[in-house]
Amino acid sequence: MISKEHITTWFKQLQDDICGQIEAQTPGYTFKEDKWKRPEGGGGRTRVIQSETFAKGGVNFSEVAGPLPPQAEKSLGISGKDFFATGVSIVLHPQNPWVPIIHMNVRYFEMDNNIWWFGGGIDLTPHIIQPEQAKTFHLALKKTCDQHSDAYYPKFKDWADDYFYLPHRKETRGVGGIFFDRLSNEDGFDKASRWAFVQAVGSTFCPTYLPMVEANRNTKFSDLDSQWQMLRRGRYTEFNLVWDRGTKFGLHTNGRTESILMSLPPIAQWIYNEDISQQSPYKETQQNLKKGINWANLIT
Amino acid sequence: MISKEHITTWFKQLQDDICGQIEAQTPGYTFKEDKWKRPEGGGGRTRVIQSETFAKGGVNFSEVAGPLPPQAEKSLGISGKDFFATGVSIVLHPQNPWVPIIHMNVRYFEMDNNIWWFGGGIDLTPHIIQPEQAKTFHLALKKTCDQHSDAYYPKFKDWADDYFYLPHRKETRGVGGIFFDRLSNEDGFDKASRWAFVQAVGSTFCPTYLPMVEANRNTKFSDLDSQWQMLRRGRYTEFNLVWDRGTKFGLHTNGRTESILMSLPPIAQWIYNEDISQQSPYKETQQNLKKGINWANLIT
Repeated sequence: MISKEHITTWFKQLQDDICGQIEAQTPGYTFKEDKWKRPEGGGGRTRVIQSETFAKGGVNFSEVAGPLPPQAEKSLGISGKDFFATGVSIVLHPQNPWVPIIHMNVRYFEMDNNIWWFGGGIDLTPHIIQPEQAKTFHLALKKTCDQHSDAYYPKFKDWADDYFYLPHRKETRGVGGIFFDRLSNEDGFDKASRWAFVQAVGSTFCPTYLPMVEANRNTKFSDLDSQWQMLRRGRYTEFNLVWDRGTKFGLHTNGRTESILMSLPPIAQWIYNEDISQQSPYKETQQNLKKGINWANLIT
Repeated sequence: MISKEHITTWFKQLQDDICGQIEAQTPGYTFKEDKWKRPEGGGGRTRVIQSETFAKGGVNFSEVAGPLPPQAEKSLGISGKDFFATGVSIVLHPQNPWVPIIHMNVRYFEMDNNIWWFGGGIDLTPHIIQPEQAKTFHLALKKTCDQHSDAYYPKFKDWADDYFYLPHRKETRGVGGIFFDRLSNEDGFDKASRWAFVQAVGSTFCPTYLPMVEANRNTKFSDLDSQWQMLRRGRYTEFNLVWDRGTKFGLHTNGRTESILMSLPPIAQWIYNEDISQQSPYKETQQNLKKGINWANLIT
């Protein structure tokens, strides 16, 4: 039996582990923690870092419970009295434009009437796309998925392409990754197998992302690289505020604003009709911000 | 008879007039114009400026027509075949933190089945609130309103308080102003009187805002003032992307993204749990970001 207490404990350990590994990469910089309570029940541990590597980053744990808010009932299409939700959410905005922005989320939801599901994903948003890096990233996610089901990677990769998309820009947020939601008892999967997969996704974060950080955080960059980074951060802001369902839901249901918006970049820029995207290597990045690129099989 | 051609022509002249007056204030800086066509019908003239006074500003005219999009039918709660909409929209982001951000919009909408209405408003977002300035601003709007109906200012002032509000921050965008929508044939008003009012609002923009710009654009400011300005621009971004109905509608209905998002600041910042708002004069600003302040009657 996989209880919510068991899942919660594991998610807290995951948060501790990830924070520890990030701190170990930049000795002298530590996360600052805010413990918060939700008036209706539950709370969280918001942890933020600002270091020579990350201009702004958050690794958050939350565990909330109580009566299901009416808006949640409507948006989730479910009914019931009390809900429980726990998860770990990460967004890291690097200082160096050659280090990609990372996002990861793993979460568990249950109702008092036996409804339960897992959700989550990891996606990579390079300011400047390096195809080899995108390939390495997708291969790592594919390996994790394949160990649990051959059906996972193709399905969750396409789901990420569709989810991390800005219709008003006709571009993806980055090179995608995997996204999944409402994984429950179906298609031959039981709770134990779903949970094992979600744990594997959480455990994939550090070994996949931290080497990319290490490889690029001292890369020389130009003023134009920084300028382009600022514009890409503007796009990240647009995605999170206009399209991200989690952000919208949080802001519309009296969530903890500072924790929800820790995903926003430290600073972002908007230039009317910018023309930097006409220049290499930004032009190639712009051309690769589209759905359906088979990064894992890229011939480089 | 006030035809859509008449209204359109007047709005174009308003755009020309406002651009001319802004340019006259900073000789050497001119608006750049983009004329655009909407595939489904109509188009616009987007005009943007970057000057020693404005870090980013847009004065846009548009005139769009065609079959009513299904999303519009739903969000407006109306039915009909063809629609026509025209308007002028302005957002100016000043360089100097002591010059307030301004927003104005005047618009006209009609359907092929005799439905028509006017909408619009002006609201002021000082980075640092100067009560005397807010009072002057509201008195000017009240004067314009009162010349058309005693009922206008109280109603439209409250409407602006409610509209330009960030629920997730529990704060107003700035010191408000006036906001109105769907002004049609009712409460003893006819089309001629509604149109006269909307013209008066458009004509109030320059004499109300430009003297404020002139009085403050050379004011000395500190690094902390600039830092605070960046945070307030972050809030402006949050309002426009999360709550503003016009922006959301445009982004969800394949509007011209560059024109819609010209309202975003040139650059914005997000700091987790910032503490600048604990210091004077930002603290007083923060305390005044609330609904229901009777700025016009303020005793200063």
